[in-house]
Amino acid sequence: MPDQFDVLAIGNAIVDVIASHEDDFLEGKGIPKGSMRLISAEEAETLYASIGPGREVSGGSAANTTAGIVSLGGRAAFVGRVSDDQLGRVFAHDIRAVGVDYRIPPARNGRPTGQCLIIVTPDAQRTMNTYLGSCQELDESDIDEAAVRAASILYFEGYLWDPPAPIRAIRKATAIARDAGRKVAMTLSDVFCVEGHRADFLGLMDRGEIDILFANENEAKSLFQTDDIDTAIAALDGRVPLAVVTRSEKGAVVVTPGQREAVPVTPAARVLDTTGAGDLFAAGFLTGFTQGRALKDCAVMGTIAAAEVIEHIGARPEADLKARVKALLG
Amino acid sequence: MPDQFDVLAIGNAIVDVIASHEDDFLEGKGIPKGSMRLISAEEAETLYASIGPGREVSGGSAANTTAGIVSLGGRAAFVGRVSDDQLGRVFAHDIRAVGVDYRIPPARNGRPTGQCLIIVTPDAQRTMNTYLGSCQELDESDIDEAAVRAASILYFEGYLWDPPAPIRAIRKATAIARDAGRKVAMTLSDVFCVEGHRADFLGLMDRGEIDILFANENEAKSLFQTDDIDTAIAALDGRVPLAVVTRSEKGAVVVTPGQREAVPVTPAARVLDTTGAGDLFAAGFLTGFTQGRALKDCAVMGTIAAAEVIEHIGARPEADLKARVKALLG
Repeated sequence: MPDQFDVLAIGNAIVDVIASHEDDFLEGKGIPKGSMRLISAEEAETLYASIGPGREVSGGSAANTTAGIVSLGGRAAFVGRVSDDQLGRVFAHDIRAVGVDYRIPPARNGRPTGQCLIIVTPDAQRTMNTYLGSCQELDESDIDEAAVRAASILYFEGYLWDPPAPIRAIRKATAIARDAGRKVAMTLSDVFCVEGHRADFLGLMDRGEIDILFANENEAKSLFQTDDIDTAIAALDGRVPLAVVTRSEKGAVVVTPGQREAVPVTPAARVLDTTGAGDLFAAGFLTGFTQGRALKDCAVMGTIAAAEVIEHIGARPEADLKARVKALLG
Repeated sequence: MPDQFDVLAIGNAIVDVIASHEDDFLEGKGIPKGSMRLISAEEAETLYASIGPGREVSGGSAANTTAGIVSLGGRAAFVGRVSDDQLGRVFAHDIRAVGVDYRIPPARNGRPTGQCLIIVTPDAQRTMNTYLGSCQELDESDIDEAAVRAASILYFEGYLWDPPAPIRAIRKATAIARDAGRKVAMTLSDVFCVEGHRADFLGLMDRGEIDILFANENEAKSLFQTDDIDTAIAALDGRVPLAVVTRSEKGAVVVTPGQREAVPVTPAARVLDTTGAGDLFAAGFLTGFTQGRALKDCAVMGTIAAAEVIEHIGARPEADLKARVKALLG
């Protein structure tokens, strides 16, 4: 029987609220540009009251990755918790509308659906302020053993590695995936995740629970507490069988034991909003991987998917990514 | 004492849900392209389940007009009813964030905030499916006499002329405005509004309650049940002191007793989504009018504002309209 899914992804179920502002808006609030930070319900309310008109679009890192996988022609399932509210219905609608399998029931009588207030500055940089809300109510009961067994790759985001219940859910899923001989992929997500959970993340790698690790330069450096990216890459070598380090405009490096392969970025027609670039890189890489492509071509697929998502506002693809890959890679 | 507002507008408080589809999506559902229709909560749910991923952005015809007025440098207030739910908070946030005075309390325990499911086809045409929800709960108690008296122009949309309570609210507001010597402006909104309320609308005009009438070609023709736009324009002449007929890519015609002045469109850099073009035309015209500009220049301001809003997805301005007017008109 063929696998039901190429990738089953576990992550935060988030609706993005995107507003455009000049740099001085962030400076006035003391929010570091380009950062991602978690905020409380009260902070979210205060910040929302101060930002300009927003566009509400579905987001969430691993959720964006699943949307990208489907646009690339793959089959994906998403596991994450919304609430039984209007934004929760928006999230569930949008992810199903692109063809991702999404079956997690909404939380009832709990916190509202998670939201990310994203300030996009004129340089296309995004600064993210996340209220996790119902995302944190994901638990072990949401992990469907048959679905995990039926997916070539289990993928999860470091963002979700914080409250105990979602961590238990991820541990259950990884155990099932390993037992079924599946690959387990993880993204470090953000420097603050690495800083908060460095020992846990290194432990996962050292126990052989991670087959594919995604990290950007800053996350990789933070993981090994170094300022030098070459040192970080050298430390990744052998720690995981396969690591992919994304380097913004410098492209990406694929790290396998004793080997490095660098790929340049795929140029974007314009750069409007960099939100989702890392998520879509992972989508391209993982889809290429499940198609059995050479690792270098997997990384090129990642750069093609990332290039599309930065050309417009919003973190999910709007163009047919499969067609773009076919045009550029065959 | 100077007027507090240039325009106080009464209309539906709507959040748009915008999805892109090919023409055959509409054909398959038997929905006429370019139409605006009212749908029930059940129809809205069924249609929503079938459309692609959406972007939620604040809309509503007269509300879009007030956002345009503020972007043009004017002062505007909006009167319309949302519900006490997440989309209601989005609407209230967004309209206040652009600087429109909005004080109407949300309806509680009633229908959800009004939503418009908008299908944008590749030719940039919009097809609108509106669930009015809490919009219909606007009533006379929401009309603040002092605010109406303090606005140079009272503006209302034909869309709202349907359930009895909002009609009473409009009648109360127009009586106050007339008593205060203010101008009353109205848009016919849509052919279906004209078909449903032709006698009412003609009665308003014949009793001298409308000073400025906005209509597109189809609405003007429907009002006088003719297929000939020149016949419709001739019928408007004298029926209202000032009528402005918008003609899509053919520009607009200003109709005053015995006079016609035609203006061409202002070219748009690109045409992505025509939603809001009429709303922003009214914003430009009314702002020019309150600035004491020649009627022809008021119409040119309308075309400048309309050109901007069709260049992007969403029915409210994203560029600084005041700067655009200054560059083109001085």
